[in-house]
Formats: sequence, structure tokens, C-alpha cells
Amino acid sequence: MNTAKDCVIGLDYGTDSVRALVVRASDGAEVASEVFYYPRWKKGLYCDPAANRFRQHPLDYIEGLEATVRGALAKAPEGTAAQVKGISVDTTGSTPCAVDRRGVPLALDPGFAENPNAMFILWKDHTGIREAEEINRLAKSWGGVDYTRFEGGIYSSEWFWSKILHVLREDAAVREAAWSWVEHCDWIPALLTGMTDPLTWRRSRCAAGHKAMWHESWGGLPSEDFLVRLDPLLSGLRDRLYRDTWTGDQAAGTLTPEWAQRLGLPVGVTVGIGAFDAHFGAVGAQIEPHMLVKVMGTSTCDMITTPETAGEEHLVAGICGQVMVQSCPGQLGLEAGQSAFGDIYAWFKQVLMWPLENLGAAFFPGEVAVRDTLIGQAAEALIPALSDAAAAVPIEESGVIAVDWMNGRRTPDANQALKGAIAGLNLGSDAPRIFRALVEATAFGAKAIVDRFVEEGVAIHGVIGIGGVAKKSPFIMQVMADVLDMPIKVAASEQACALGSAMAAAAAAGLYPDLERAQRAMGSGFETIYTPNPENAVKYRRIYQRYQKICRFIEHDFTE
Amino acid sequence: MNTAKDCVIGLDYGTDSVRALVVRASDGAEVASEVFYYPRWKKGLYCDPAANRFRQHPLDYIEGLEATVRGALAKAPEGTAAQVKGISVDTTGSTPCAVDRRGVPLALDPGFAENPNAMFILWKDHTGIREAEEINRLAKSWGGVDYTRFEGGIYSSEWFWSKILHVLREDAAVREAAWSWVEHCDWIPALLTGMTDPLTWRRSRCAAGHKAMWHESWGGLPSEDFLVRLDPLLSGLRDRLYRDTWTGDQAAGTLTPEWAQRLGLPVGVTVGIGAFDAHFGAVGAQIEPHMLVKVMGTSTCDMITTPETAGEEHLVAGICGQVMVQSCPGQLGLEAGQSAFGDIYAWFKQVLMWPLENLGAAFFPGEVAVRDTLIGQAAEALIPALSDAAAAVPIEESGVIAVDWMNGRRTPDANQALKGAIAGLNLGSDAPRIFRALVEATAFGAKAIVDRFVEEGVAIHGVIGIGGVAKKSPFIMQVMADVLDMPIKVAASEQACALGSAMAAAAAAGLYPDLERAQRAMGSGFETIYTPNPENAVKYRRIYQRYQKICRFIEHDFTE
Repeated sequence: MNTAKDCVIGLDYGTDSVRALVVRASDGAEVASEVFYYPRWKKGLYCDPAANRFRQHPLDYIEGLEATVRGALAKAPEGTAAQVKGISVDTTGSTPCAVDRRGVPLALDPGFAENPNAMFILWKDHTGIREAEEINRLAKSWGGVDYTRFEGGIYSSEWFWSKILHVLREDAAVREAAWSWVEHCDWIPALLTGMTDPLTWRRSRCAAGHKAMWHESWGGLPSEDFLVRLDPLLSGLRDRLYRDTWTGDQAAGTLTPEWAQRLGLPVGVTVGIGAFDAHFGAVGAQIEPHMLVKVMGTSTCDMITTPETAGEEHLVAGICGQVMVQSCPGQLGLEAGQSAFGDIYAWFKQVLMWPLENLGAAFFPGEVAVRDTLIGQAAEALIPALSDAAAAVPIEESGVIAVDWMNGRRTPDANQALKGAIAGLNLGSDAPRIFRALVEATAFGAKAIVDRFVEEGVAIHGVIGIGGVAKKSPFIMQVMADVLDMPIKVAASEQACALGSAMAAAAAAGLYPDLERAQRAMGSGFETIYTPNPENAVKYRRIYQRYQKICRFIEHDFTE
Repeated sequence: MNTAKDCVIGLDYGTDSVRALVVRASDGAEVASEVFYYPRWKKGLYCDPAANRFRQHPLDYIEGLEATVRGALAKAPEGTAAQVKGISVDTTGSTPCAVDRRGVPLALDPGFAENPNAMFILWKDHTGIREAEEINRLAKSWGGVDYTRFEGGIYSSEWFWSKILHVLREDAAVREAAWSWVEHCDWIPALLTGMTDPLTWRRSRCAAGHKAMWHESWGGLPSEDFLVRLDPLLSGLRDRLYRDTWTGDQAAGTLTPEWAQRLGLPVGVTVGIGAFDAHFGAVGAQIEPHMLVKVMGTSTCDMITTPETAGEEHLVAGICGQVMVQSCPGQLGLEAGQSAFGDIYAWFKQVLMWPLENLGAAFFPGEVAVRDTLIGQAAEALIPALSDAAAAVPIEESGVIAVDWMNGRRTPDANQALKGAIAGLNLGSDAPRIFRALVEATAFGAKAIVDRFVEEGVAIHGVIGIGGVAKKSPFIMQVMADVLDMPIKVAASEQACALGSAMAAAAAAGLYPDLERAQRAMGSGFETIYTPNPENAVKYRRIYQRYQKICRFIEHDFTE
């Protein structure tokens, strides 16, 4: 059990940055936190957005680990470091990377330092679209187990095997050097605990569960037979991956002396099993039955729990998969998500910033650093300004309707080949009207998921919102509440994912007997509730039908 | 016949500005020119783009008349004014205005000075969509003549009767005060020649011919019976309009002493019959058989001549209408057009300028005038910069495909309720890729018209391009040549419409026996030929099919 002084650290690796949150284990109160933006990623290195290639260098992660933990501890009262009992980590996913025999990501080898295929393949990378299609085809046709059944029947190019196979095919050098593969959320605990043999790593069940098609019922990962049929290049890899998996309330090991020193922590601190950000986020946001936890960041991850009927599996067609929510005993967690959410607003911002970024130098002469600062400030202010202007446009007035598939569609019915659209444009369709349509589109995408759950018998009474968009964008949250015609509660914690990681760390370190009790004791409650406006809800029902029309056209008549 | 010293003036009223061109009658050489931007229009007064309402104040036209003629003469060698023998005018159209018994536009009455319904209803105003539908319905169903037959079977909300009926219904004060109505191109000659009785005005056959459903075969305008069935509000108006029409090589009268003084010209200068800009533009661009003259400005007006078979009318389904091309004897002119062309680029520019225009003040502090100048320069530079960046994007690479109906569709098959769209968007679809798709969309819209002509038996071998876009945008012209798979010749004259007006003025003043000879003597030739790239042409044929898919969806499944 914890004492009044015990602390734990939750580390949350997001798409653009990593944050460390030091909290008091007794009540979850924040002691200190620090954020770090990945420097290589920020420069756009190793990525090609037009080709949907998004890679992250392991050094971005390592530098972020040191900077945030040290940074947070430096802000905390003296003596805090000595009180830290556990550290757990969540990351984006599926974000796998090729590792060598000693478990080192290939990009840390000087020979591969600049090779994007030797880096972490970020969740939103869709280079493996063709491979995902092959997996789906084979799973349905090969006569054996349909390994996609816990993924809602559709395997995604955003996931483990699609990405691995794509890189193995594309890059002979990486193929030669890759001994095994690891999810970002499994690699950080392995690194911190000094485990240098991938065969001994304790892999996260949450990550394995549906991103790698791992399931107890078929003995772990898909069979060697299946994988070799998919491509002989996969031959033997299954044995160099894993059979067992571990849950987020368990320990991966303890901090090595080297890492204790690098982070400024005591040797022997418990390192918990990692998880995907949304899963610890759901814990941090105090997930409860019938409430959809929606992690709203660059994309969304949506989780809902449903009573687990003994011996029966609740499968929801077209939904990502089942996850275990350790904090809700007797409940089975179902996961879905939108492939792009905040990324869509960021995309539009980027489109609108083109003149400033490309003509700025010619028309705003002066010191480069000053101009860049001003342009950066303008970019920061843009979405709030657009939100204000868009909020003033009456619903239905503009007629602009967008589809939110700019990064494909994760759920329902994963299809990463789909693309986004903006229809109903006339010469009066100004930037705020288009922005409003994009916001509505992301809410319509959320509604498509909610409707699917409800059709499949999973009752949803409301939404718990976490993530950057939920905290920062009242306009977007209100549109979402109106479109869903459901209340949205926003978790009070600024860092629900990191808080959830901290709760997991507390459980893993034995400060609580289980994660459920850690969640109850350390939760931060809610700060806002968005209530749907009934008139708007009625209007949106009609517009949603038009949105669905465009969706059907794109999916059935337009996608090649 | 003309002497070496004779001069003529062509006045060209475009959407945003008016220009006067003084040329030598013997060879068309430019003596001087002046341009004037409508000040009220520039401020956005009387318009509501979101509602597709676009109105222009007659004072914008009058001030432009004086400023450009005086301005051009001031730049010309001394004594030029005394050598001017004729002045003709072309304008946008259909751009009608309500006038009082003395032929004065209502907005010149102080009581109506700020009433948009008392002003000229600009060609691109689509407030009369419902009225156009009623006209089309009645024309097909009433059992009498189908008055739309020379309009390709579809009357447009951009035209005379739709606009008149809409305003009569909407505005009781204007209804009471409107004695008759006039096209912009008829009003300027009436004004200059001092004709104060609308019944005596010499109306342009070109304007009447298809915008007002005037045709010799049914005795002029549609019958009183038809008009009253359409709406009793139209009762009696036919008799207060006109029976006869005049061609652009004829004179409307001579300059009054008052206007001679205001313009700095001799009394008695011949004032020619006016025409729509595209029609005199075709003359100025030296229209010839089998070449489509495409006036590429904010919208396009497309004209082609086809041999006139004695006694037979060549009707092309879904195309605007027949016009007489006085410079091509034995040829019947057919007109089509795109409702938005340069306006689409301007719309996208406006969308992209939102951050600078709305956040500029906060982030680029300093003197307002300096900042506004810089922002104006950035706006000017934007489309050329986007064109350069878009030209570097390989065809098909981005997958972004747009539909160019942001202002409805004029031809083929007029339908102003249609709207534009952008599909195939992903997170890498940056501003240049979207711009490229918009440029391709305008070229696809042009191809739809060309294909319709060809299907209907009108051979087209190439395009003669005139207008601002043709002169200024090599990137856009090359895309157009590749999409059409046809050469595009760009007229050398900077002011083909104004030059055509000047040719008409020379014919009207008797300096040439007919317009054909004026065109031959005064033509300025061509400056550039864009030749299609065969590989690109093949690629675009495939993309065009995808464009057509979106078009069909918008038209048949999406438009309400």
C-alpha cells in the first residue's frame, strides 16, 4: 500500500511530443510535469505525407524520455525523485520497429541512422495498404482461423503485420538486419529494465491483442502456416516474437542502474508493462460502463466497455477489436477510432498557412527569426480564430459538407484507401465555413462509430472526452455533442493518458492491489459537460444523411 | 473608308473593371488605354456571395466611363481626341437593370441609391434560380413555342427574365418604380446618345438573342401570353421592352454635346450598338471556323462558328445559344460558357488569405497602410506562386480531383443549383495540390463543353484564348491544352474584347464596309501557342472519367 509520500511517474508518448507526469500515488495529485517535442519529427524528417509515410526516429523517444523525466523532477519539490516507486509508459500504436538480435532498433545502428525503414513506423503510416488487403483476403480465404475476427473482421494498414511485411518487401537491407520487431510501448520498458534479448521481453497484451492478431484462443500470434502463406518473407519471425503477453497492472522489471542515473531516479524503481495511449487514457479518464471514452488528439481512439458474458465473445462487426480494461472487472473493452481527427484541423491549418510560409519572406522582410516567430504565433492562433468565426455560421446555412477520411477510415469497417472530400462549395464558401464543415465531418465520423456500436447491441449513454482537442476546443466539443445528441464529459486531468500510465505504475509497483482501485483513488474527475442542443441535433440528423450519401459515393463508386 | 489618322475607341466593361482602348482604325495599333476598377464593387458593396447575390451600382459604370476615356486620351498623342470617329462598348451579360420611364437606372434616384434591387444584376448573380426553373418548366409544358430552344433547351438563372422576375417578386418598391429594363450593354450607348425613351433604344441583338429569348421566328420576345402565365407581374412589360434588335456593326446614334464634353471627345462621334464582352472579344480575337474562342476571365464565354445551312437551324442540346457573328458571313455562332473560371482561383486565393487578412493585424503590428499594402502584394503574388508549385506536382500523383461548379454550371446543360467539390483529399493534400486540382477542374469543365459540341456535330480543331487568365497563366493554359488535347492560341492583344469593340466602332462609323473587313485589318494576331503534351493528354483522359463520376454523383444523388 502507498504512503502519503509515494510518487509514480506516467510517461505518455503522443504523436508530436512526449510528456512525463509525476503524481502522488495516494490521490493522483499532480506533483510536476514536463513535455518534449520530438525534434526530428518536428522538422518533418523521414516522412512523406503525400505518400502517407510517417516514421519516427528512436532518438526522438530516448531524448524525450530523459528530458521529460529529468525536467519534471527538476520542477518537483526536493526529494521527490527518491519517493518514486513506479514508472509506466503509454505510446501511440501500432507503432512497430525492426530490432536486431540484442533488441536495438535498427536506426540506432550508424549504418541505418537515416533509413526510415529502420525507424518506428508511426500509427498513422499507411504505406502498408496493399499488405493489409492481402492479410484480409487470406484471413477470409485460407480455410483456417479468421485471425481478423477480434479486429471487427478487417485488418488495417495501420497495424503491426501490414507494416512489417511492407518494410520487409521494400527494403532488403532492413530485411537482412531485422531479427525481430517491437511495438514502441514494449520497447521503452525493455530499454528501462535492461532487457537485451527480445525473446525475454514482456509484451503488452493490449498492443498484441488486436494490432498483432494475438489471441489466447489460437495460441497467441497467427500460425506460422498462415504467416508463410501470406509471404515466405515472414518465415520464422513468429518464433522470434512472443507467445505470452502481460497486462498493464503488471511489472516489466525494474530500472537499471544506468537508466536510474540517466533519469535521476533510484535504482530498482518498478517499470510497468506498457500500453497504447488510449487504453491507459481510458483508465486515466475513469472509464465506466456505457460511457464511450474518446481520446481526441490527432486521431481518436474510442473505447467502451460491455458486460462480459461468460464464455461468449462479443464481436462488433467493423470495429477495431477487443481490449481488456483491467480497471473494469467483468467488462470487456471494445475499441474503435477515427484515423484522423485533430490531424484534419491541422491539415486545413497547414493549407491556410501556405501563403504566410511561402510568401512571408518576400512580403514581410526583416529578421528571419522574428518573422518565423510571428508566423508561428499566427499558426497557433489560427484554429481558435477559425473556431470563433465558424461558430457564428448558422448550421445548414453554408451547405458545405465534408467527409473526414483524409487519413482513411479506421472504423467502422476499416478501409485506409478511402480519402476525404469537401462538397457543396460555392464562391461564398470561405475559410470558416470550410472549417465548420471539417469539424462537422469529424463529428459525423464519430457518430458513424457510435451508431455501429448501438446497432450491434452496445448501449452508449454519453462520451468521456480526453486528449488535446477535448480540452482546448469548446466549439468542436459542442458540435460533437449536437451531432451525437449525447452529453460529453471532459476529464479534468490535462494529461489523462499520462495519469492513466501513472495509475498503472502504482498498480504495477504494488501501491494498490489492482488497477481498478488505483483508478478510483487517483482519478481527477471532470471539468466540463457539453450538453446537446436539441434543435441543432435535429438539423444535424438531416445533414448526416447527406454526409452518408457522399460516404457511400466515395466508398462504392469513386475509390479505385 | 478610314484615313491614316482615324481612331476609334473600344470600351470593355468586365466584372471588376472597365477599360478604354484607343486604336488606329487603319491597322488596330494601340494608341493608348486606361483601366478603372469599380470602387463600390471593390468594397463588396451590395453583394452577398454566400447568397449568390452580385449587384453593381450604375455610378461605378459612369465613373469608369469618364475615367477611362479621359485617362486613355490623356496618354495619347495630342490631337488624338479630334481623330476619334467611333466608340463602341461591350459589357458582361446578362446584366440587366430596372429603369424608369426616362430610361434612368433606378439606383440613380436618391430614393433607391442603396437598394441592390435597383442596380445592375451582374451576370453571375444567381438569386433567380427558382425563377429559371419556372421558366424552364413552363416553356416545356405550356403547349406553345419552347422559347428555350435556342438556349440549348435550358434557361439560366444568370439571364434576363429570371433576374427580372426575381426582383419584381422580391421588391415591391422596385416593382412600382420599374417602367422597363435594360441590359448594361444597351444602357451605355443609350446614355451616350442621349436617348431618354426606352422605347426608342436600339437593343443589341447579341444580348437579346439568347439571354432574353428574343428570336425573329417568333416575332421577337416571348409572347405576352407566355410571360403572364409565368407570372402576372410581367403583364405589359413586353410592350415596354422592344421588338427590333440591332447588330454590332450598326450605329446606335451619336455622342451628345454633354457626353462629348464629359469625355473630351468631339460632338457627333458615332456610338455603335453594344454587345456582350465575349462576342466582341471573339471578333477581337479574330474568330475563325472550327476554332473555339474562349474568353477566360472570372467565368468563360465560349464561342464557335458553324456553317449556316440555308433554312436550317443548328441547335446544340444543352448549350447556351446561337449568336450572330457578324464578322463570319455564312457562319452561325454558338455560345457556351463556364459559370466560374478565374473566380475559382480567386475563391481559393480568398480562402488562403484568411489568416493574413484576419490575423495580420495581431501578428504583424505596425502602420495599417503598410501592412495592407504588404498583404495586397502577397495576394497578388499568390496565384503565380501556387501555379509554380502546382506545376511541379506530377499529374495523378496527388489524387485530388475537384469539380468546378462553385458558381453552378452554365453549360453543358445549365444548372445553377449545382455546387463544387474537392475529392481525393489526404493529409498530404497541400495548397499547391488543391490548386492544381482546381485548375484541372476548370479544364475538365471546358472539356465537357467541347465534347458536347463535337457530339452534336460541331467540329472543333483548337482554341483561341483571350481574357486575363489566357494572358497571365501559362500553367493554366498548358493544363487546358493537355486536358482538351488541342492547341490553344492566345491572342496577342492585351485587350481582345476592347479591340473587338473598337473594330465594331470602326464598322459602325463607316470606316469599313463591314465588321469582317474591320476584323481582318485591325487584328493583332497571336502571341503564344500551347501544344498538348501527348502523355499528359492520355493521363488526363483517365482522370476526366473520375471527374465525370463525381459530377454525376453531385448532379443526380447529392443536389437537393
